[in-house]
Amino acid sequence: MANQYIDLSTVRFLLYKVAELETVTKLPHYQDHNKESVEILIESVKDFADKELYPYIREMDEQPAHYKDGKIIVHPQIGTAIKKAGEMGLIVGSFTYEEGGLQMPATVSNTLDMIMEAANNHVIGYWGLTFGAAELLVSFGNEELKETYVPNMMEGKWGGTMCLTEPQAGSSLSDVKTTAYPQEDGSYKIKGQKIFISGGDHEYCENFVHLVLTRIEGAPAGTKGISLMVVPKHRITENGLEFNDVITAGDFQKMGQRGYCTTHLSFGENDDCQGWLVGTANEGLKHMFLMMNGARISVGRGAAAIVSAAYHASLQYAKERPQGRRVSNSGKKNVAEEQTLIINHPDVRRMLLLQKAVAEGSMSLVLEASKAYDLSVAAESQEEREKNHLLLELLTPMVKTYPSEKGITAVSNGLQVLGGYGFCSEFILQQYYRDIRIFSLYEGTTGIQSMDLLGRKMTMKGGKAAFILVEKIMESIQAANTHEDLKPYANTLGEHLQLSQKVAQFLMGFAMKGEYERFLSDATIFMEFFSNLTIAWQWLKIATAAKHGLITGDTTYTEEFYESKIHTMKFFYKYELAKNHSLSKVLMDENVLTIPTEQEVFVG
Amino acid sequence: MANQYIDLSTVRFLLYKVAELETVTKLPHYQDHNKESVEILIESVKDFADKELYPYIREMDEQPAHYKDGKIIVHPQIGTAIKKAGEMGLIVGSFTYEEGGLQMPATVSNTLDMIMEAANNHVIGYWGLTFGAAELLVSFGNEELKETYVPNMMEGKWGGTMCLTEPQAGSSLSDVKTTAYPQEDGSYKIKGQKIFISGGDHEYCENFVHLVLTRIEGAPAGTKGISLMVVPKHRITENGLEFNDVITAGDFQKMGQRGYCTTHLSFGENDDCQGWLVGTANEGLKHMFLMMNGARISVGRGAAAIVSAAYHASLQYAKERPQGRRVSNSGKKNVAEEQTLIINHPDVRRMLLLQKAVAEGSMSLVLEASKAYDLSVAAESQEEREKNHLLLELLTPMVKTYPSEKGITAVSNGLQVLGGYGFCSEFILQQYYRDIRIFSLYEGTTGIQSMDLLGRKMTMKGGKAAFILVEKIMESIQAANTHEDLKPYANTLGEHLQLSQKVAQFLMGFAMKGEYERFLSDATIFMEFFSNLTIAWQWLKIATAAKHGLITGDTTYTEEFYESKIHTMKFFYKYELAKNHSLSKVLMDENVLTIPTEQEVFVG
Repeated sequence: MANQYIDLSTVRFLLYKVAELETVTKLPHYQDHNKESVEILIESVKDFADKELYPYIREMDEQPAHYKDGKIIVHPQIGTAIKKAGEMGLIVGSFTYEEGGLQMPATVSNTLDMIMEAANNHVIGYWGLTFGAAELLVSFGNEELKETYVPNMMEGKWGGTMCLTEPQAGSSLSDVKTTAYPQEDGSYKIKGQKIFISGGDHEYCENFVHLVLTRIEGAPAGTKGISLMVVPKHRITENGLEFNDVITAGDFQKMGQRGYCTTHLSFGENDDCQGWLVGTANEGLKHMFLMMNGARISVGRGAAAIVSAAYHASLQYAKERPQGRRVSNSGKKNVAEEQTLIINHPDVRRMLLLQKAVAEGSMSLVLEASKAYDLSVAAESQEEREKNHLLLELLTPMVKTYPSEKGITAVSNGLQVLGGYGFCSEFILQQYYRDIRIFSLYEGTTGIQSMDLLGRKMTMKGGKAAFILVEKIMESIQAANTHEDLKPYANTLGEHLQLSQKVAQFLMGFAMKGEYERFLSDATIFMEFFSNLTIAWQWLKIATAAKHGLITGDTTYTEEFYESKIHTMKFFYKYELAKNHSLSKVLMDENVLTIPTEQEVFVG
Repeated sequence: MANQYIDLSTVRFLLYKVAELETVTKLPHYQDHNKESVEILIESVKDFADKELYPYIREMDEQPAHYKDGKIIVHPQIGTAIKKAGEMGLIVGSFTYEEGGLQMPATVSNTLDMIMEAANNHVIGYWGLTFGAAELLVSFGNEELKETYVPNMMEGKWGGTMCLTEPQAGSSLSDVKTTAYPQEDGSYKIKGQKIFISGGDHEYCENFVHLVLTRIEGAPAGTKGISLMVVPKHRITENGLEFNDVITAGDFQKMGQRGYCTTHLSFGENDDCQGWLVGTANEGLKHMFLMMNGARISVGRGAAAIVSAAYHASLQYAKERPQGRRVSNSGKKNVAEEQTLIINHPDVRRMLLLQKAVAEGSMSLVLEASKAYDLSVAAESQEEREKNHLLLELLTPMVKTYPSEKGITAVSNGLQVLGGYGFCSEFILQQYYRDIRIFSLYEGTTGIQSMDLLGRKMTMKGGKAAFILVEKIMESIQAANTHEDLKPYANTLGEHLQLSQKVAQFLMGFAMKGEYERFLSDATIFMEFFSNLTIAWQWLKIATAAKHGLITGDTTYTEEFYESKIHTMKFFYKYELAKNHSLSKVLMDENVLTIPTEQEVFVG
């Protein structure tokens, strides 16, 4: 099929058969949703993505969003897309009925977003952040704030942003300096600079609602003195909208995702910027982080979507491009033979399978985490809700990081499939290669995520989150073990699970001795190691579901489809999971080489 | 130091102490060269690079070479640089005196080129290919051809190119179709299309001398019917230059290396394109490939140079940018403390050390191969010359591939050091990230190189080349073993050498059984595996030389410098060489998953 960017059969299989959406939709909270209603959503979103998103992805790269005369100019289709998304209820579909949404499970909304992002990763963030900002208002704002801002945001008439980063404090939120000065009427005057603000300004929304991390004058240093404020670009008065001294000071031109504007906002340059407290003073970071799991899942989802798009683009090329001949068993070439399609070269197949394994494994993990979110909200027992919340906390840094990091390699393989053409602007692979590179920087870099995974999530509640994950993996191993030909892979996963426990214990030893810096010094390697295990778990689940389909003669998907999933699982185990042998050696190596000592390491 | 792109101390150390240039310059053929003369060259080239190359790298990216009205427009500094390089004798420095050159060892010329490429990787190719084309003429052309073309090429007045690729035959040279029709005067009429021609046209050379792979009318199919022709853009007549019907049909806009034009040339559209045979008819590919080792080493050298430049750019940032605090042993943050420089975070140090290890390990391998080339030309015994030729043949695919592939990861780490800024156009890291991506495509993709390494080089002359490499690695292990604290690393390398022999034997088993496709199906994994071993060898050599400097109190370099090299060796062994445990498992896995079978794998 021409210009395919995602395979809907795979999406459906992952959603219904692997993530088993039914366990979510059968809960009272989500009871109005079912496979039939979800199918309607999938079809309409795919249609929207085909018509309004995919056709513009190249243009948005070639005519990037940019700053001009105090304004941000974006591609006009962004305006059209935001409007339609608002009309379709996509912006706040996962709000409850009370909040004005469709009470859509995250499992479903992330599926829909993934389809749209695979079509065009430059656009979805515009309403993704609007949703995030609205969610903060709904969760922590008082009635007045909600009424003032949320309805227009839901429709896409107003945009929303998250303002965290400041020039002097990138990942270090302890050092946020933007100040909120209390006013007599209960509002605050805001003064400060925020950078890297995605979707911060453009002409297709009449107002922007910024959710800003600030420090109320006199608040304690560090993260304990941070308060969340809502600061609109235009404040709402009896006479309509009035400029609120939020100046777009510039933008950041980027290597990729160029349709998605990244702005520099200046608050209160003329002492006339008003903000209102959202939630409790000094608890702003806690409030913000309640939304962070969702935001981080979105990042991983976006990366997974790009991997899918790159995979399909390179697969299409490989199926159409003749070049060279298969290696014959004599080792000689028969030039009288016609050239073969490049998909018949083992090295090309390896590069395609790698992409397929990363794309689908990542999508499956996104759905796993989304389901944990849904169950943490709506499972019937408190115990189940808590268990799923802990699982979500543990999975989130991996969902954010694995597709972002491994996705770079996957897309690079996609580019390589095209040979020299892959590097040429005429083909889209080079764009995906540039686009995906930002995902390991968004919402906490890989280094930050890795310290979160090892330093917080693995140890939280006495290791309970990790225990829950192990339990779930064991269940999947057991399920796979009922199929003779999956047994070897179930066993392999079991061995790797044990290896990971050994590694975790080794590292925890440092924490127990109070050697925290050492404990965390290879956190990024641990992230890679533990994510490989987690994706291998997803692939075993996928293969088991496929096997089940084959055995039961379920004709929803073809036999070839099922076999292809099992084949890709085998590929992941051979080429990817195997990396954990080496990574475990790195992690348990006694040599400490990256902690600063008196010896100057960077000479020459 | 601001804007450093390469460290000359490291370059000198690798050249004099690790590659031991003296073993080359003491040979009669190179006797006019010595450390003093080389130092003068290094200084003047560094000065040239500082003044004429480095200041223009950003501009060349921002104002890319492009096609306009039948012409290619390039950055004007490219003209200036070519002219000066010609004046300095840099274009054909490695030609013999007879040929009009400086009889410079490749070890030296590659060192000089590496310095220039680290400063600006968009420029050197212009005269690199001119040199390559001139070298073909000098080696295989008759006196008339040499006299006609070479002198102007040496000065940079005329450019040279290599025309291999055609639209229907990318990597598959067997399928070259450009045709040469014999004429009565002994020349040929040329007709055909060539694409991806680097440096194929611009206004700063008055003529272009294309070395073109063609098929003489009626020649056999496949590589046995390919002839090398010289086809100038303007032919030389009594009245001066006359257009030779070589039309610049367009260009390829690329993601990176945008200052270096990539053209589409059309030969003989008006039946008036004349070419002359270079060397023997139907042996064109053989002639071309005699130059291929050099060309491939150049590619690896360019990639290594970019890694060096990215390393220095990210190191400088890490030393200047404060952010966050070191993890304290309580695990708590003291926000009253000032922010630390990011170079003090272990994860940042890991990313810097990775870059350093890849950059310097790659540079060392480039010099190792260059030295093998020099010794293959000029060693005193026939046996030594042959031995070094075989070593060169074996090393070449790795020299080409390792810096290109691992360099992508290294530069990506450099970008990550800068956090969000790394992705912004304002900083150069994103440019290096784009620039380096082409190197694994140039001059035979990684897949092609890997099949060359495993399928040809490992087995050539009954495995003699591999045996020579093993012998050299054993020597280095022995030398390291004389130092107590290097022993563990020498042992580790010994173990990995054994592992590689086991893997090689396992794979050769398939070749012996006539299962050639299976033998080569994981060639790219073997490339990664065997290159890791080879770079680990370089690092052991570097560490041994450093240790020697420390013990003998050689103050040419500081103690810190020596210690830093030893530290980086340890880093490479812990984090990189360790990967071979997993790679060996992949290579010896019995599961065959990438050879086409009846089962359709790419479903969904």
